[in-house]
Amino acid sequence: MSGYIAPVRDLRFVLHELLEVSATSPADGGEALDRETIDQILDAAGSFASEVIAPLNGSGDREGCRMPAPGVVQTPAGFREAYDRFCAGGWTALACDPAHGGQGMPSVLDNALYEMFCGANMGWAAYPGMSHAAYTCIASNGDAEQQALYLPRIASGEWAGTMCLTEPHAGTDLGLLRTRAQPRADGSYAVTGTKIFISGGEQDLTDNIVHLVLARLPDAPPGVKGISLFIVPKFLPTAAGGIGERNALACGSIERKMGIHGNATCTMNFDGATGWLLGEANRGLAAMFVMMNHARIVVGVNAIGLMEAACQKALGYARDRTQGRAPTLAARSGPADPILAHADVRRMLLTQKAYVEGTRAFALWASQLADVQHRGADPKERERAATLLALATPIVKAFSSELAVECTSMAMQVFGGHGFIADNGVEQHLRDARIIPLYEGANGIQAMDLLGRKVLADGGAGLGLFLEAVEQFAQAQGDGLREFAEPLSDVVALARRAARDQIERAGADPNAAGAAAMPFLRLIGHVALAWMWARMAALARARQSPDGDPIYRAKLATARFYFERLLPETQSLAVVLGADASAWTGADLDWL
Amino acid sequence: MSGYIAPVRDLRFVLHELLEVSATSPADGGEALDRETIDQILDAAGSFASEVIAPLNGSGDREGCRMPAPGVVQTPAGFREAYDRFCAGGWTALACDPAHGGQGMPSVLDNALYEMFCGANMGWAAYPGMSHAAYTCIASNGDAEQQALYLPRIASGEWAGTMCLTEPHAGTDLGLLRTRAQPRADGSYAVTGTKIFISGGEQDLTDNIVHLVLARLPDAPPGVKGISLFIVPKFLPTAAGGIGERNALACGSIERKMGIHGNATCTMNFDGATGWLLGEANRGLAAMFVMMNHARIVVGVNAIGLMEAACQKALGYARDRTQGRAPTLAARSGPADPILAHADVRRMLLTQKAYVEGTRAFALWASQLADVQHRGADPKERERAATLLALATPIVKAFSSELAVECTSMAMQVFGGHGFIADNGVEQHLRDARIIPLYEGANGIQAMDLLGRKVLADGGAGLGLFLEAVEQFAQAQGDGLREFAEPLSDVVALARRAARDQIERAGADPNAAGAAAMPFLRLIGHVALAWMWARMAALARARQSPDGDPIYRAKLATARFYFERLLPETQSLAVVLGADASAWTGADLDWL
Repeated sequence: MSGYIAPVRDLRFVLHELLEVSATSPADGGEALDRETIDQILDAAGSFASEVIAPLNGSGDREGCRMPAPGVVQTPAGFREAYDRFCAGGWTALACDPAHGGQGMPSVLDNALYEMFCGANMGWAAYPGMSHAAYTCIASNGDAEQQALYLPRIASGEWAGTMCLTEPHAGTDLGLLRTRAQPRADGSYAVTGTKIFISGGEQDLTDNIVHLVLARLPDAPPGVKGISLFIVPKFLPTAAGGIGERNALACGSIERKMGIHGNATCTMNFDGATGWLLGEANRGLAAMFVMMNHARIVVGVNAIGLMEAACQKALGYARDRTQGRAPTLAARSGPADPILAHADVRRMLLTQKAYVEGTRAFALWASQLADVQHRGADPKERERAATLLALATPIVKAFSSELAVECTSMAMQVFGGHGFIADNGVEQHLRDARIIPLYEGANGIQAMDLLGRKVLADGGAGLGLFLEAVEQFAQAQGDGLREFAEPLSDVVALARRAARDQIERAGADPNAAGAAAMPFLRLIGHVALAWMWARMAALARARQSPDGDPIYRAKLATARFYFERLLPETQSLAVVLGADASAWTGADLDWL
Repeated sequence: MSGYIAPVRDLRFVLHELLEVSATSPADGGEALDRETIDQILDAAGSFASEVIAPLNGSGDREGCRMPAPGVVQTPAGFREAYDRFCAGGWTALACDPAHGGQGMPSVLDNALYEMFCGANMGWAAYPGMSHAAYTCIASNGDAEQQALYLPRIASGEWAGTMCLTEPHAGTDLGLLRTRAQPRADGSYAVTGTKIFISGGEQDLTDNIVHLVLARLPDAPPGVKGISLFIVPKFLPTAAGGIGERNALACGSIERKMGIHGNATCTMNFDGATGWLLGEANRGLAAMFVMMNHARIVVGVNAIGLMEAACQKALGYARDRTQGRAPTLAARSGPADPILAHADVRRMLLTQKAYVEGTRAFALWASQLADVQHRGADPKERERAATLLALATPIVKAFSSELAVECTSMAMQVFGGHGFIADNGVEQHLRDARIIPLYEGANGIQAMDLLGRKVLADGGAGLGLFLEAVEQFAQAQGDGLREFAEPLSDVVALARRAARDQIERAGADPNAAGAAAMPFLRLIGHVALAWMWARMAALARARQSPDGDPIYRAKLATARFYFERLLPETQSLAVVLGADASAWTGADLDWL
C-alpha cells in the first residue's frame, strides 16, 4: 500500500499558472510572495504531511481517542509529538496576522497546505484546523485586549480553540439553543449548558483550550436574534496571560463514530463556567458566521485532500494489480495485465482525477477571492470578490464533499474486494470523508444558502456576475479551444435558464426552492468545474510541447474526459430542475 | 432509534398484486401456494427478522468476530442462539428440495424472506445465505451419493457451506488460481492452497462446514479451462454420515474490514485436505456459475434489505426530529417543524423509497423468472425466462448495490451530524452495504457481463426481448397512464439506440464496450425500474379508493416522483454513451 504523496506539482500548477498567486495575492502587509517562497513552503508542508502525519493516519484510525479518566481525552499515539513539531515549524502561525506572531500568508496558500494536511491525516489536521477557525473568529470579533491575550497563544499553537455551537436539540436550527450566560458583577458571565459534536473539545495536545460558545443572555429575544458568543477557556488566563484556575467545564463523553477516529468529538458540559462576551450581545450568530464562511471553504479543501489521497491509492493499486486481459495493450508480460489497462478501471481513475483537480482549482480560486476581499486595494474589486465568494462558498463546501464521498467510494471500487479490508487503508478515506457533507452546515443547508440567499435574494444578480465571467472566458477562446468553449457556453445557458426558472417559481410556490436546491447546487458546481477545466486546458494547450512537462498532456486529456463523461450530468439536472415538485412538497405525505 | 420493521405489506403487494405468485409460481412438486400460506410465511419470517436478529445487528457490529485461539472463530454474542432458532423453525430448509428434507418453496418467496433477514442483520444472514448457495451448487452438480450425504444436512442447517474461489492473486481473474488437487488411489483428492475472503469459512454455529473449493488437477490445462470444483468438508463424514476425522484445513486469520463485522471473512489454508470432485473435471467454473448467478440475485436482494432498513431509520428520524420552519405546513406546534416538512428532506426520503421499492419489484420479478426457468411446464416459457433472467441478473446485482450505497448514505444525510454517530445505527448500513458492489463479481464485471456477454454476444436479441416486453406494456396503457407510459416508451427508445450504437462500436474498437459498460448497465437498470414503477402505478390507479389502503396512493405518488426526479438520469447516460472513449482507453496514460 502506497503512502500519501503530497500533490505539490499540481498545487504549483494551480497557484502559479492558473491563479498567478505571487502576482495577485500579497501576504498580509502587502508584501508580494515570490514563486520560490511559495514553492519552499509547499515543499516543506508536503514533507510534513507525507512524512510526519500520514504515517499516523491508519494507526490513529485504529486506536482512536480514549477517555482514560472522566474529562480526560487521550489522542492516538504520536499525535502529540507531531503537533509539537507542527508548532515548532511555525505552521500554526502561517496564516495569522504578523501583529499576533503570525506570518500573514494569504488564505489561498494556507488552504493549499491544509489540503495536504487533511489528505495525509484528517483526524489529526482537524485539531489545528479548528484552532485556526477560532483564531479567525476572535480576530474578527474580539476587542483589543481579547486579541492581545488569545491570538498570539493560538497562533503559536500553545493554546487550541474550538467552536461550540450544536446542542442535542439544536443543530441546523441554532435558534433553538438553550445554553445560558448569566452576567456577573465583574463583567464576566457564568455559562451553563451542554454542547455536542465539539471537535477537539478536549485533547492532550495543548496547554489550554479556548472554547467559543454560543449562548443566550437572560433578557435575550427568542430565536436566532437572541444568541451571543462567549470566550470560555478551559483554564482561566492569569493576569500575565499564563495558565490559571480550571474553569467549570468538562468533556462528558466522546462519540463513537464512523470515521475521523483520531479526532475527539466531544460532549462539553458548561456548569457556570466563566466566560467573556465576544463581539456584541445578541449578535453571536453573525459573529460566528464570519468564521463559518471561512470554515466552509476549509472543509471543502479537506474533502479534496481525501479525494487526492484515495485516488493515489487507487492509482497505485491499478498499476500493481494484474488481473485479466485488456482487449488492447501495447506491451504484455506475465499471465495478466495491470488492471489500469481495463477501460472501466480507467473510467474510475479519470473520474477521480477530474474531480479532485477540478475542485482543487475552484476551491483555491475561491480562497483567492477571500484574500482579495480582505486585502485587496480596490474597493470595487473587494466588493466583487465578496459577491463571488459568497456564491462560491456553498459550492466549495457541498459539491466538493459530495464528490469526495463518491470518489473515495470509487477508489475502493478500483481495489475490488481488497478495498473493503481495513489494512489496505482506502476504506478509511470513505469513512472519514462521510462527515464532510454533514458538518459545517449539512449540504442541504448549503444548497438552500446558494439558491435561497445567494440567488433568489438578489434576483440572480450575483450569479449573473459569476456566469458572465465564465461566459466571457468562453467567448474569448479561439478555434483551438472550441471543444471546451462551446459546451462551457452551453452549460452557462443551462444555468441561466435554471436560475430564471427558479426565480419565477419561488414567487408561486414557497417550497419550490427547497425541492430544487440540491440539483441546482450541483448544476452550478459543474459550471464551476467546467470553467476551471476549460481554463486549465487553455493553459495546457499553450504550454505543452513534445518533450515538455507531462502535466500539460495530462491536463488536456483530463479536461476532455471531464467534458465528455462528467459534465453531461447537467443534462439530467436541467430536466429535474424543470419538474414541478408541488405534488410532493405541498402534500401531507401521511402515506410515507 | 427505531428498530427494523419487516416490510411485509410491500412484499405482499409485490408478490400478490404485481407478480401474482400464488397463481404463477408453484412450490417444488407443482403444488400451488395460496396467498394465506405466503402471508403466514412472510409474517413469521418478518417476526423472526425484527424480533430475533435485528436486535443483534448493532451489537454484532460492535463486537465483531474473534479468534480466541488459532483456527477458532467466535461469532458475536447471540448469533449461535439465533441460528439454532432459525434451524428449529425450518427456515434453512424453506427453499430446499423436499427430497432432501426441504419445503420446496419458490425462489421468489425465498428471496423475499432473505431481503428481510439481510435488512435486519446482514452479518448474521450471510451465514445461512452462503450455506444455501453451497446447497444450490451441490444440488446442481453433485452425484446421487453426494446429494444424499450433504444436502439434507445443509438443508437442516446442521452443516454449513462455503464457496472458496478467491486467492490473493486471483479474484476477478480466476484463471490465475493455484490451489492444487492431487488424485489419491481411493478416488479422493488432496487439496492444497490458500483461499481468501471466505465468508463463514470458520464459525461456531454449525457442527460441520462443507467447503466448495476451486482447484487445479495436475494435468489441467492453464487458465479457466483447467479449474475443477471439490467438496472439502471441515470434518470428514463417517460412513453413517456423522462427524468423523478433522480434515487438513484451517482458518488462518479473519479480516478486519469496513462493515459486516458480524460475518467472519476468513483466510482458509488447505494443507493436503481430503476432497472429492464435484461435477466434471476441468468444468469447475461452469459448475460454480450455476450457483453464482443465483447468488448475484441474492446479493442484490441483500442490498435492497439494507436500503429498506436505512430508509426506515431516516423516515423515523425525519418524523421525530424538529428543526427550523418549513415554508408551508398545515399544522404547526412547538418551536420547530419535523424535518419531514422540509422539501430537501422529502427529496431524500422519496428517492430512497422509489429506489428500494423499485429494485425490490425488479429483483423479485427476476426471482420469479428463475422459478419459471427451473420449474415451468412450457419449454418455450422456460427458455424465454432463462434469457430474461440472464439479462436481469447483472442489473439486480450491480444496480441494486450501487443504489444501496447511494441510499444508505442518503439516509445518513437525513440525520445530519447524528448520522455519523455509531449509536444511531444508520452509518452501519452504509458500511455494510459498501461490500455489495465489490463481492460476487465487482460491479464493473457485472456491467461487462451485461453489455459484453448478454447484449453484444447475441447481437442484442435478448435485450430486444426484454425491451419488447416493456414497450408492449407501455403501448397497452390507456390515457390515464400516459404520464408513465410515454416516458417509459422514451427510455426504451434510448436503450435501443444505445444498444445498437454499442454493437456498432464494438466492431470498430475493442475497448468501447469496457468504457460504456457501467453507464449502459445503469441505463438498462432505469428501464427496469421505470417499467416496475409504471406497472405498480397502473395497479395502484385501478385499485385506489378514497378510504382504501393508503399503499395505492403511496405507490402512485412515488411512481410520479421516480419518473420526474430519478428517471431523467437517463438523459445524461445517453449523452455519455454517445461519446467516443478511444482517446483514453487506447492511449498509454503514462501521465496518470
